[in-house]
Parts: sequence; C-alpha cells; structure tokens
Amino acid sequence: MWKATEEVLAPIATGAGILGTGGGGNPYIGQLRARQALKRWGPVTVLAPEEVPEDARVVCVGGIGAPTVGIEKVRDLQSYHALRAIEEFTGEKATALISNEIGGSNSVEVMIAAAKAGLPIVDADGMGRAFPEFQMKTFFVYGVPCCPMAIADEKGNSIIIRETITPAWAERLARAATIQMGCVACYAVAPMSAEQVRNTAVPNTLSLARDLGLAVQRAHDTGGDPLAAILETCPGRTLFSGKVVDLDRRTTGGFARGTVAIDGLDDYAGCRMIIDFQNENLIARVDGEIVCTVPDLICAVATDGGEPVTTELMRYGLRVTILGFPAPALWTTPQGLAESGPHHFGYETEYIPLQVEGT
Amino acid sequence: MWKATEEVLAPIATGAGILGTGGGGNPYIGQLRARQALKRWGPVTVLAPEEVPEDARVVCVGGIGAPTVGIEKVRDLQSYHALRAIEEFTGEKATALISNEIGGSNSVEVMIAAAKAGLPIVDADGMGRAFPEFQMKTFFVYGVPCCPMAIADEKGNSIIIRETITPAWAERLARAATIQMGCVACYAVAPMSAEQVRNTAVPNTLSLARDLGLAVQRAHDTGGDPLAAILETCPGRTLFSGKVVDLDRRTTGGFARGTVAIDGLDDYAGCRMIIDFQNENLIARVDGEIVCTVPDLICAVATDGGEPVTTELMRYGLRVTILGFPAPALWTTPQGLAESGPHHFGYETEYIPLQVEGT
Repeated sequence: MWKATEEVLAPIATGAGILGTGGGGNPYIGQLRARQALKRWGPVTVLAPEEVPEDARVVCVGGIGAPTVGIEKVRDLQSYHALRAIEEFTGEKATALISNEIGGSNSVEVMIAAAKAGLPIVDADGMGRAFPEFQMKTFFVYGVPCCPMAIADEKGNSIIIRETITPAWAERLARAATIQMGCVACYAVAPMSAEQVRNTAVPNTLSLARDLGLAVQRAHDTGGDPLAAILETCPGRTLFSGKVVDLDRRTTGGFARGTVAIDGLDDYAGCRMIIDFQNENLIARVDGEIVCTVPDLICAVATDGGEPVTTELMRYGLRVTILGFPAPALWTTPQGLAESGPHHFGYETEYIPLQVEGT
Repeated sequence: MWKATEEVLAPIATGAGILGTGGGGNPYIGQLRARQALKRWGPVTVLAPEEVPEDARVVCVGGIGAPTVGIEKVRDLQSYHALRAIEEFTGEKATALISNEIGGSNSVEVMIAAAKAGLPIVDADGMGRAFPEFQMKTFFVYGVPCCPMAIADEKGNSIIIRETITPAWAERLARAATIQMGCVACYAVAPMSAEQVRNTAVPNTLSLARDLGLAVQRAHDTGGDPLAAILETCPGRTLFSGKVVDLDRRTTGGFARGTVAIDGLDDYAGCRMIIDFQNENLIARVDGEIVCTVPDLICAVATDGGEPVTTELMRYGLRVTILGFPAPALWTTPQGLAESGPHHFGYETEYIPLQVEGT
C-alpha cells in the first residue's frame, strides 16, 4: 500500500507516457487534472493486487476517445460520473477502482474519480500499456464481462451499454456514443471481484510507471543517461533513433490514425523507420522490415531527455528514440494475441516476440 | 376498450400507412409481423385514454431507423427486449404500452411487444402521425422526460440512454447506436403515468387508423371512391395528383432522405409538385410554392386504390394523390411547432396551417 500524492504525479505521467506507446491520452494534461483533484480531495491510497480485500467490488474506470481531441477538449469529472452511473445501474457500490490502461493520462484518470469518491485504487490495470479499443483489456480476455458499462460526457449526457453479444460490439457502440459526445468521454465497467482482479489484471503497473518516471528524473538530476535509466527500470531495447521527417495523422472514426516516418541518425543513419498508429503505435518497420508489433510496446521518447512523445504531440523535426518492450505475459497467450496481435489490427504478419537481452 | 385481433390488422396497416406521411416503417411488413404475434400470443386489449387506470405505468415503445433499411432488415422482438431492458433499469413493471407514433409499422410495433408481454395498449400515440426523430413526441414537448430509454437490436445488443441534457441529445445518441445496430432497432422509454398519457398523448389514433383502413376497404367492396372515403373519415383535402417522374432517395445519417417530383394529371396537369422527405414528407411545393409543411400531414396514396405509398416504396411512374391533413392540436402550439415545424427541419418558411373546409 502506498499513497498517490501530488509529488508522484509528475513521475507517473512520464512513466505512463512511455508505457502508453503513443496513446492513452496526453499525460501532461492528465497530470495537471490529477494534481487539482488530489489538492482538492487529498491523496489516493494505492493497494497492491494482493492487498485488495476478498469482498472488494472493483470498478474499472477510464477515458475513451482520440488523443488528438483530448488535448483540446480537456476532460473534467466524467470518470466520476461514469462510476456513479454504473453503480446506480448495477445497484453495487464500488469499494476500489482500477485503471483501464496504465498508458498516458488513463493512469491518472482513475485517480481523479477515486479522489472525488474517496476510494482506493489498485496498483494494476487492464493492459499494462495502452490500446485503442475498449474491449482490448486483459480483464475481458480472461472472462470478466465487458458489460454493463457506463459512458459519460462533460455536458451531462450518459448512457449504459447494457448487454452486447461480443466485447467488440461494446467497443462499437461505445465508440459511436463517444464520437457524438465530441470524441472524448469516460467510462466505468460493472464491478469485478478481488479474485477477478488478481487473475486478469496486469499487476504493479502504476508503481512501474512511477519508477520509470523517477528513473528519468534521477538521470536528469545526476546528469545520467535517461534512456539507459528507462531500459534499466523496464527491460526492453532501443529499436531506432532519428528525426521525424513525415507525419500523416488524421482523426477519423473516433481514433487518431496515421503513420510517422523517422530518418535514422548516428547508428541508424541511412535507414528509415515507419510506424503505423491507431491512437497507439501498432507496428514499426525499418526499411520495410518489421522490427516490432503489437502487443509488444513501441514507445517514442525524446532522444535528448527521455520524455515520452505521444501520438498527438508527434511532429516534424523531433529527435526521437524508439524503444521496444515485451508485452505483459497475459497478452502473448493465444487468447491474448487474438485480441491484441497484428492480425486484430488488419496486418497479415504473425506476432514475433521482441527479443530482449537478459529476459 | 376493444380488442386488436388479426382481423383489424389489415385496416390498421392501411390507415397507419396514410397517417405515417411516408414514414413510420413499412406498414405491410409491420402487419405481417403483428399477425404472427397475435396468432401466437392472442389479441391485444386496446384501452381508450380515459380507461387507463390511475396507477398505470405506461411504456412508450417504437422502432427507430431508416424505412429504406426496415424493408430489408425486418424487425423481430426488439421492442419487447427494449421494454424488458427499461423495466429492469427503472425497476418498474409496465402495466400498459403506448405507441411512439401511429404512422406506419410503429402502429403495430407496440402490439408485438404487448402481445408477447401480455399487456394492454393505449389507443393513442406520441405524434398522431410519424416524425423522423426520437424526441419529436408530444409526450416530451409537454414535459415527460425522454430518458431513461432503452434501445435493443435483433442480435442481442442493448443500451440505455440514461440521462441527456436535452431531448435532442437523446435523439443524437440513439441515432448513433441505431446506425451501428444496422439502421434498424427498437426502443422503450421509462414509464409514464396515466395522467401524463392523458395530458400529452394524441388520443384515439389507433381507432382512427383502423377506421381509415375500414373506410378504404368498404369503398373497395362497394365500388366507392377510396380517396373520398379517407377524407370523410379524417378531415383533410387533396393537395395534388399526378405521376412520379423523379425520385432522389438516399439512406444517410440513419434516415431515408430525398425528394420526389410528381407531374400533375387531370386537374393538376401542367404543374409539378416536389416533396422533400426525411423518412416522412416534410414540405410540399407546387411549382415552387409551398402548399403544405410539417407538422401538417402530407400523405401520398395510390390514386387508384387509396393505399398509402411510403417513402421506401415510392418509385418512378406511380400514380399518386397527395392528401393534406391538419396536424393534431398538440403540435400547433408554439412549443409543439418548435419541435415539429418547418424551422426545426431547416426551412426558413413559417408554418401556415392547412385550411380544410368545414373544420
């Protein structure tokens, strides 16, 4: 058990920005919002998965929409309103909250609802990264029902997706509502049990985000190498480094979709990496050859300082280093890959696990 | 009180097709579906508005979507599923049902749910015609909340629109869900009281639809004039008569939208009527001059037999007569017109009430 205070928000934002693989919502704006919430309602207790009481009712809370819109249309207390809506619908009070995805601002979206509601959060999430679609959560892959779920906007509109024949239908209906709501909304899913959380969540990801951020901070403070500090904290490897030379990004169908082209520098001079993204980075190719795909993490950070470069902030001329991290084990089983692998996103390539020394 | 039996379905379909002003769903397909339901679960009791018990909980049930799609993707028991969903959400059991709109198949959609659920229906509806958008109901104009409401599709998906800041937002979210559900779905709105029904519904419209259909049938049987029989049963007048010479119809944004051009015959030779529609006929012009607008009823019937010609069945070469009927009084108040008049549909013209002799 630890306390999420205002002080840990900055490192969490950095770490969650990295783990967000481009998406999950702008971590800086998320941090500012969470800071305001913690200032107003006090720090939030963070429970390790094994500390969640047996009779707990744990509600998954998160943001949905396109990150390109999320930086212009800032969320407010929608996650709290979605929480109250799903409590009303199910007739059950939440006793703890859990993040939908650790990536980006979704790492702290849950804190805002938790601070307002006076509830603890679990140090875990449903992805261990960020993914663009609602149903892409380890919870749902391993048997937690994805419905009922509530969606709320900042205006005062809310809907319940009561029942769907597949989790993909929940995404479809949620996305359509989100687009109407202005491409930015928050949701809350019907409560899970402690056992469901322990069996289906990716554990300890909020601490990991915090530790990643602290490592970058320490490197800055001590004149160390922030990229090396990141790779020491979370086993992974450098995939590429260079300068952004082209960016095709459009907000369509409720997502930010596109490609970014990076011309190599130093060790990578003469090569070009192209990354396809749908909110999150999906597949990275160097000179046409695939070097990393979902569900492994393809993370862009500033070559200079290690700060995450998310989809909506990517721009021409940025010096970025692309890091790869192996996906959490829950994603690399056959069921996990069916929901998160390259095929799911329309690529014909098979998933080839990223090889990382010492793992 | 009377019984809706299999025998009255054909006249109701004819009458509701006329009152549907082009929309409300294909009445013939609706009739076939209702026939099957009544055969299986027995006739449905129809209560006059004044017969509704004081403690009644009356749920409004109807179809939503584009009539062009509704003839290819036939509804099943969605209205019943939507009813059960809203009962579950509100924790209240319906004791009677009421039609959203008397026009088209929506006149009998409610019977299908009522037959299956073993409930009576009220001889009234929320329009006294058909209108394309969800929020366009006299119920909502006169203070009944439009949410919560449930929407269900034929696959097993259902959502609840829990709360919206305006009725137009309910339409917006409902339409987006309906489009995802395949452009055809059914809904049920949270229960109304008997008093709300008596104060805000358009009364006796199911009997009117039945009587219109019986009048056409009688005219056929006795060699009478079906068009005259219609106008005797429901005060209105002939606006135009001719042959369909052009039709621009597209299914877009969840609606069937377009225009139909009719070249005059006989008394109307040399003139052309153009009707704009959005599921329902909105405005009729003869040689550029407006002759009738919403909320007054612009109804196309076969010149030859008086059968209604709905939006999705309109086609080149048909001989049609266009009848006009004054809107129910609930629509011609300032509040009523704000929701149903020409301005609401983007026309600059003011509403000029249709003049009918003897009314």
